[in-house]
Amino acid sequence: MFIFQSHFLLLFKVLKKHKMNRITQLFGIQYPVVQGGMIWCSGWELAAAVSNAGGLGLIGSGSMDPDTLRVHIRRCREATTRPFGINIPLIFAHAPAFINLAIQEKVPVVFTSAGNPAKYTAMLKENGIKTVHVVANTKGARKAEESGCDAVVAEGYEAGGHNGKEETTTMVLIPHVVQSVSIPVIAAGGIGSGRAMLAAMALGAEGVQIGSRFAASTESSAHPVFKQKILEAAEGDTKLSLRKLIPVRLLDSPFYKKVSDMEANGASAEELLAFLGSGRSRKGMFEGNMEEGELEIGQVSAMISEIKPAGDILLEIVEEYNALLPTLKPV
Amino acid sequence: MFIFQSHFLLLFKVLKKHKMNRITQLFGIQYPVVQGGMIWCSGWELAAAVSNAGGLGLIGSGSMDPDTLRVHIRRCREATTRPFGINIPLIFAHAPAFINLAIQEKVPVVFTSAGNPAKYTAMLKENGIKTVHVVANTKGARKAEESGCDAVVAEGYEAGGHNGKEETTTMVLIPHVVQSVSIPVIAAGGIGSGRAMLAAMALGAEGVQIGSRFAASTESSAHPVFKQKILEAAEGDTKLSLRKLIPVRLLDSPFYKKVSDMEANGASAEELLAFLGSGRSRKGMFEGNMEEGELEIGQVSAMISEIKPAGDILLEIVEEYNALLPTLKPV
Repeated sequence: MFIFQSHFLLLFKVLKKHKMNRITQLFGIQYPVVQGGMIWCSGWELAAAVSNAGGLGLIGSGSMDPDTLRVHIRRCREATTRPFGINIPLIFAHAPAFINLAIQEKVPVVFTSAGNPAKYTAMLKENGIKTVHVVANTKGARKAEESGCDAVVAEGYEAGGHNGKEETTTMVLIPHVVQSVSIPVIAAGGIGSGRAMLAAMALGAEGVQIGSRFAASTESSAHPVFKQKILEAAEGDTKLSLRKLIPVRLLDSPFYKKVSDMEANGASAEELLAFLGSGRSRKGMFEGNMEEGELEIGQVSAMISEIKPAGDILLEIVEEYNALLPTLKPV
Repeated sequence: MFIFQSHFLLLFKVLKKHKMNRITQLFGIQYPVVQGGMIWCSGWELAAAVSNAGGLGLIGSGSMDPDTLRVHIRRCREATTRPFGINIPLIFAHAPAFINLAIQEKVPVVFTSAGNPAKYTAMLKENGIKTVHVVANTKGARKAEESGCDAVVAEGYEAGGHNGKEETTTMVLIPHVVQSVSIPVIAAGGIGSGRAMLAAMALGAEGVQIGSRFAASTESSAHPVFKQKILEAAEGDTKLSLRKLIPVRLLDSPFYKKVSDMEANGASAEELLAFLGSGRSRKGMFEGNMEEGELEIGQVSAMISEIKPAGDILLEIVEEYNALLPTLKPV
């Protein structure tokens, strides 16, 4: 009887410890932590490392062509038996090919961003793929829900890379989106610790998407020089830029300064596009050219101080979350 | 024995319910909720209403002269026996007179903002006044701690009115400031609900400062037309503006559009100052001129839908906080 009880207690503790919610159930993962699909940073090595540690790893397709993406999907599948996904920016020319590739390769999860999910969601879901869309406002969240998405990522102003025109921060955006849709909400923007994850869950999110912290992980394919710059970033060192095109959060750099000067002097969208040319983000984030390259990273970089394996980062976040939870008291 | 136990249990519940922390102890208040000292919105009526409900009400001195402030302090004292405070923007010409007034009138708490607290903190504290400084970065927080402040308010990018140059959001700013100082941190920016308060406390804050939600309260001295505009504000309707002078978050309006056009066309700080002239905020927030007046409000206005008595707002926030706390689960 005593043995039975102690087993029962153990089972209860395990269940309580690995509390399921709608996000862990949706993806079939252990912890409701998604690694953001980032251009030039998140190939198969990072995605597999996060999925192996119990989160959901995403391959960022935005910097790939279809052949490259196929290689990354296959390698990721070799490196993990657990669920993983790909992120597809819908404004990208390769998007239709990527959608077909996801279906052919039976990728378990697709996150779409930067565009209208209505076009592809039904097709993805008919093929058994869990589909999530990234939004920056409640209108986008409602459209994603109507188009059949299983969940939304709501991403705040503090996030690195592409950003919403409303500039709504995570603190304000998450409760508003949670109130506006019935599907589960994954919070993104400014989250790099268990403390911030706890805050996101308090705001009503059922999971978090973490980008910058994983961009600075061992398995990230970011150039070592860019990873070092992330560690060195201080408060105020990331700037929302290119509001006339698509707003994007950049690390302060000679490239950013040039863009900023052009904007302050009233440059048109065409002039900005001409200056940007192509290949700027590859040059910066992948090739390590800190002068001419575009460097996308979030505000939370000011608190990132160490490059670690992605699995260690994930477990540190989960442990911090669970350790801080009981410290919250009624008022 | 049973009766003793039930009394004991009741006492325990009461103590647990009204959990003290460093912020409630510092100010001698029931709930760790501070009503932000806002120009043209927070006179003695609002401050007294919040203090009477168990929070800390602040008279916003930034729109007053010394005689007016003295009247507000005295009326506030007549209207509540509980602690209250005043907010003093240190860049304001009347600041030295306000500091002396706070000492003469034995105001229990002074919040300073927009300037260096080192000049006045010692004097205020020698006179038994609890002193708090508002900051937007860790450097400011450390300076406030070194100057002897009892606490800091860390205010994020989403907040209405004056704003930090770094544009760091509440989600990123609070844990960074908490990690940087030993004195308690009060979170501000984007907080208008119990949900957001819970998130702020998860980030390590020991109290919250709430502005916009109280600007739209019955006791707020904002013009009824401005209060109505706060209710109508949608996502993206507040804009960080005047980055060349002191960044300030404004509600979208004809005045904002004019400033924004000038900025987009490369207007200098001098040209902007000349256009602003004086009395713009009085005209907008106090006199209800929605065309020419300056309207300061936070991003959280997009979620404010009703004008209520300040005491009801405070209790609703506290109840929501306490109701949501047990819904947070381990992961």
